[in-house]
Amino acid sequence: MQKDKQTAISEIGEFGLIERLNPKKENKQASTIKGVGDDAAVLEFGNKYILVTTDMLAEGTHFNLVYTPLQHLGYKSMIVNLSDIYAMNGRPTQVTVSLAISAKFSVEHLEELYKGIHLACEKHGVDLVGGDTTSSLTGLTISITCLGEVEKNKITYRNGANPTDLVCVSGNLGGAYVGLQVLEREHKLFSENENFSPKLDGYEYILKRQLKPEARKDTIELLDNLSIVPTSMMDISDGLSSEMFHICTQSKTGADIYQEKVPIDMETAETARELNIDPLTCALNGGEDYELLFTIPIRDHEKIMDQQGITIIGHITELKNGLNLVTQDERKIALQAQGWDPLKGS
Amino acid sequence: MQKDKQTAISEIGEFGLIERLNPKKENKQASTIKGVGDDAAVLEFGNKYILVTTDMLAEGTHFNLVYTPLQHLGYKSMIVNLSDIYAMNGRPTQVTVSLAISAKFSVEHLEELYKGIHLACEKHGVDLVGGDTTSSLTGLTISITCLGEVEKNKITYRNGANPTDLVCVSGNLGGAYVGLQVLEREHKLFSENENFSPKLDGYEYILKRQLKPEARKDTIELLDNLSIVPTSMMDISDGLSSEMFHICTQSKTGADIYQEKVPIDMETAETARELNIDPLTCALNGGEDYELLFTIPIRDHEKIMDQQGITIIGHITELKNGLNLVTQDERKIALQAQGWDPLKGS
Repeated sequence: MQKDKQTAISEIGEFGLIERLNPKKENKQASTIKGVGDDAAVLEFGNKYILVTTDMLAEGTHFNLVYTPLQHLGYKSMIVNLSDIYAMNGRPTQVTVSLAISAKFSVEHLEELYKGIHLACEKHGVDLVGGDTTSSLTGLTISITCLGEVEKNKITYRNGANPTDLVCVSGNLGGAYVGLQVLEREHKLFSENENFSPKLDGYEYILKRQLKPEARKDTIELLDNLSIVPTSMMDISDGLSSEMFHICTQSKTGADIYQEKVPIDMETAETARELNIDPLTCALNGGEDYELLFTIPIRDHEKIMDQQGITIIGHITELKNGLNLVTQDERKIALQAQGWDPLKGS
Repeated sequence: MQKDKQTAISEIGEFGLIERLNPKKENKQASTIKGVGDDAAVLEFGNKYILVTTDMLAEGTHFNLVYTPLQHLGYKSMIVNLSDIYAMNGRPTQVTVSLAISAKFSVEHLEELYKGIHLACEKHGVDLVGGDTTSSLTGLTISITCLGEVEKNKITYRNGANPTDLVCVSGNLGGAYVGLQVLEREHKLFSENENFSPKLDGYEYILKRQLKPEARKDTIELLDNLSIVPTSMMDISDGLSSEMFHICTQSKTGADIYQEKVPIDMETAETARELNIDPLTCALNGGEDYELLFTIPIRDHEKIMDQQGITIIGHITELKNGLNLVTQDERKIALQAQGWDPLKGS
């Protein structure tokens, strides 16, 4: 490896790195509609668009096997990918699963992991069509690639939001982050005293949000039933602020998000306060909720307003307005993308 | 992780593991034509078949950064995948690249790695359309997924060989394995004495075979120009014996392979002898040559017989004949699959 003029990856960050490693190039294949830069790549084979997305999860960075059951880990590894396909308004169809495994894993361990993978396949109607399993000197790395399909007139990118569009979010936010804080607190106490027994009662919902999240197939089906095609969409893996920032940047717009509208579950809020964290901060900057953030034309307001599990949290504005959080006393605070960065570790 | 009745992965081997983790299930998607079990999965979107293959390379198992330049590593990581698409008689179209990287890697290191990746993309006309980069606690793991396409009437599986078919191979065999032995010998001497300077002169060809192999796009183009559709095909990643075993098993045939026909380059043979290894063993059981092994109907004999870089090494027989190596004195020795198993380490 070369020794001169080295730049630490943390200096340029995840997006800086993506730009350095993927210089703008003309695509060589006519079938490549969109490459790097959205939730999934978009390819044209036949009448529909084919979507491709991939995610890698590394032990110690994305999960800790001390408190992550292998079956849940398999399930979550799938969800992370399926969620990216839904975020294009698509339907996942096939996955490949690759593992690098250290000597500490037995066949039974892998069967547990695959139970979760197969369960997610069943639930989302996806076929497992390939993969690769190899030995690693340390730890477990899981790499999953998911294919999906979407009608050409329904594909939803990050860059289509327009001023006056409503900003909507599925479910609620911050739970996965607060769940992780509880797991880490209990793990720390256990490390300090082996006789300590972790107290996880009363945290069931947020622990499930962290350990066994779901991808919002139901939201995509709902939008389809309501005949709504979002103007932009992303899944919330790095936190609401970060994802809103992406939508606004790519759509060349601003947005106002209303503090009081940001959906936070009661267990999330109570536990956050118990841990001395601001629940709103968890909702804005906590990652891994895998909810869908999308914008719809204001003409669809009536269709969406009474739908259970969908919250209108703000609206898209002109670019010059910037991206703001509007507080309950109507002050505007600039929102900053402070998402969870896996390149800095968890 | 559960503690009871643990089975070591080495007890059941790579193929046993694949079977345990992928119980036979009905495919849920009409677009899934073929899942696990060939060089690539086959999907039907539109008029052509879409191919998907994925490979994972882990530091310490598949490569040693002490003697592997990062650019070559990037190139080779691509070739491993492209080769699987060619082995289906297909044309690679898009790739996704995921990396887990430890803190020892700088932006410049990754740029070197990506130089090799982009070079392979250029050379094979492939678009890099996505990926994921994450931090790892130790070492480098590279996971690449490649998509390709093939006309429905040209797709070539492993299971279509018929008795009397000719067995052909592109290029020559064993070079990559012997190249690795030279690298490991020089590395060992260097580890024992830091003043030792590795002697790599005269080994250029076999080192290139190991460090910067090529995928046989040219062979697929040649077959197309000759209007030959192979009855079965695989790429040789685990050694000729192992791949012939797969073709015979899946096609329910036997085969006779003629010892004197197995193509071995002169530098490979000479270096093998210098290292006290049998050159034929290297050709039969050495991995990572990424040549194509294929069978064609005997009626295509005249078309292929004088083609440079293609060698007819034997013929397919009835199943009861078994898989044999026919020696120069016409003895038949049963061939055994002793391919390189990445689950046992390199």
